[in-house]
Amino acid sequence: MDNNKHRYCVIMCGGIGSRFWPYSRTDKPKQFIDFFGTGRSLLQMSYERLLPIVPKENILVMTNARYADKVREQLPDISPDRILLEPDRRNTAPCIAWAAYHLAAIDPQASMIVTPSDHLITRESVFEQCVLRGFDFVENNDALLTLGIHPTRPETGYGYIQIGRELEPGLLKVKTFTEKPDLELAKVFLESGEFFWNAGIFLWRAEVIKKAFHRYLPDLASEFDLGESVFGTPAETEFIQTHFPSCPSISIDFGVMEKADNVYVECVDFGWSDLGTWTSLYDNSPKTADSNVTQKCRVMTYGSSGNIFMTPEDKLVVVSGLQNYIVADAGDVLLICPRSEEQRIKNMVIDVEQRFDDRYL
Amino acid sequence: MDNNKHRYCVIMCGGIGSRFWPYSRTDKPKQFIDFFGTGRSLLQMSYERLLPIVPKENILVMTNARYADKVREQLPDISPDRILLEPDRRNTAPCIAWAAYHLAAIDPQASMIVTPSDHLITRESVFEQCVLRGFDFVENNDALLTLGIHPTRPETGYGYIQIGRELEPGLLKVKTFTEKPDLELAKVFLESGEFFWNAGIFLWRAEVIKKAFHRYLPDLASEFDLGESVFGTPAETEFIQTHFPSCPSISIDFGVMEKADNVYVECVDFGWSDLGTWTSLYDNSPKTADSNVTQKCRVMTYGSSGNIFMTPEDKLVVVSGLQNYIVADAGDVLLICPRSEEQRIKNMVIDVEQRFDDRYL
Repeated sequence: MDNNKHRYCVIMCGGIGSRFWPYSRTDKPKQFIDFFGTGRSLLQMSYERLLPIVPKENILVMTNARYADKVREQLPDISPDRILLEPDRRNTAPCIAWAAYHLAAIDPQASMIVTPSDHLITRESVFEQCVLRGFDFVENNDALLTLGIHPTRPETGYGYIQIGRELEPGLLKVKTFTEKPDLELAKVFLESGEFFWNAGIFLWRAEVIKKAFHRYLPDLASEFDLGESVFGTPAETEFIQTHFPSCPSISIDFGVMEKADNVYVECVDFGWSDLGTWTSLYDNSPKTADSNVTQKCRVMTYGSSGNIFMTPEDKLVVVSGLQNYIVADAGDVLLICPRSEEQRIKNMVIDVEQRFDDRYL
Repeated sequence: MDNNKHRYCVIMCGGIGSRFWPYSRTDKPKQFIDFFGTGRSLLQMSYERLLPIVPKENILVMTNARYADKVREQLPDISPDRILLEPDRRNTAPCIAWAAYHLAAIDPQASMIVTPSDHLITRESVFEQCVLRGFDFVENNDALLTLGIHPTRPETGYGYIQIGRELEPGLLKVKTFTEKPDLELAKVFLESGEFFWNAGIFLWRAEVIKKAFHRYLPDLASEFDLGESVFGTPAETEFIQTHFPSCPSISIDFGVMEKADNVYVECVDFGWSDLGTWTSLYDNSPKTADSNVTQKCRVMTYGSSGNIFMTPEDKLVVVSGLQNYIVADAGDVLLICPRSEEQRIKNMVIDVEQRFDDRYL
């Protein structure tokens, strides 16, 4: 394992996951929740998935300062200096820039994988092989590598990556990134075989992504260049406090990946879902004989099917005559909503905020 | 008010109201619940309704020993010796027999109204007039008087009283008591004008009902006759502890009213409901613009109507696309059930007991 000492994992853990309200809340977002009732949160699953790939001390968690305690509680093995606390929410580009500057300072040969903390990956050994191959690739190429997921359905909730020239089987140049398509277009994408889901998982060397920031997001790069001498030192925290909030709020996809000319995709298939919606959670969860998803909840159903329940562990839920609903009881909030209307939940959250301020957010 | 010093009110308060599970529970039955979110339980409303009719100290509460604290807490004005604690559940006849023996002992001229504690009466001044007239009647006649409610719909959930010979307007001999009819029969009853709802509210003199017990429930009367010397004395409690559990469990309707030949009905119309079902609660509650009953609950509805919500006071309930359901969140239990299936709730409670013992009862 000596050959992996320059390999780092960066877990992005600052999101608020508002689509899973009321189960995800501003003080306990999606990544901290035990979504499948397995006793492990999505963050914990993400962390454990990376353990076989890099030395434990090479795993970094980027999160918002308000979630510091949550991260420490859920990942007690991680050394406090491996938890980087963002003083503000600034989307993925500033987060990744900080991680890259930090790693380049402590290890000029650093290569890194950047991964969300709130996705599901079911085939962990396949994931491991794919990531190892990705590290090999970016260590030998000045490349920005993204993982593209073999699509299995005309999903309209994901961005797609169009593949170009093949370097070797499963490793190709990226032709274009596309936004979420409508259903018609998604069907065309699926049939063409040229489009892969953008999982938001990236690999590169720290120096290579720093170069890309200078070229495509020079304002952001200049901000971090001011601290070149402090990264990896005790002064880093204070520098970030001052300068991070000045960064533009922009995604790495829009700011860098869609513009750079050295972007590659590794086409993979390791049972991935972004768990972005209740329906994706429903689809990825074991079902009862009546096609309900009850997790560890105590649910008794009568003439009810296709529902997904998330309720406190000891609560008894008795349901009759309910088809295809989300029933989410978060203690102080109860949501009952047809699965087909889940897109409206974010508007309901806005209504709730208007009426009750942040009490139920 | 001197003429009412021999008049007594007996509030029966020992029921468990299982049809309103999970909101009514064995440790907090229906009568103790603030059903309408007015800040007063059904028992408190029943008590306050009687205050203008008899002297406060002439109000008696019959309840199960396990509810003693609840009664004292909700009716702090009542002197402890006016709360008669049944050591066991024995239906209405033994309860009423005890009340009658007790009152006859402390006041041989006692007349009494016996009333449930968990019904709704909306026109309290009409109620008062009807009860005063009833007292006048039973004080001048050796009569067992029941109040018959003018029916307003072909209700299949109530028993009916068929009227016979009229003594004076609105005061008639009872011809028969009938059990709950099916819908066809209920329609015939309604159209005939001869049938009234049996509200389970009775008036008589204590001596007269004691005589009826001797004639129609001699076993029960013998049991209480054994304590003739102790009623109204400190020895009464111990006597009841010993003898009450030996009483047959039987209703006053079946045991006495359906058999006696001196039964009369006062036909009344004071906005009565037994609140026996969620639908009757729905019907008797104010509605939102969307025809939902939300009480004091914090409910936000989207495309939802005809529902009744009972949830903890500070809980936010967000509901979309739900029509005509009962949503009852009792903290440790959540029930979601179409109103049209409310008759099945009692079977669900049996299932719950089989699976979880009495944890959620």
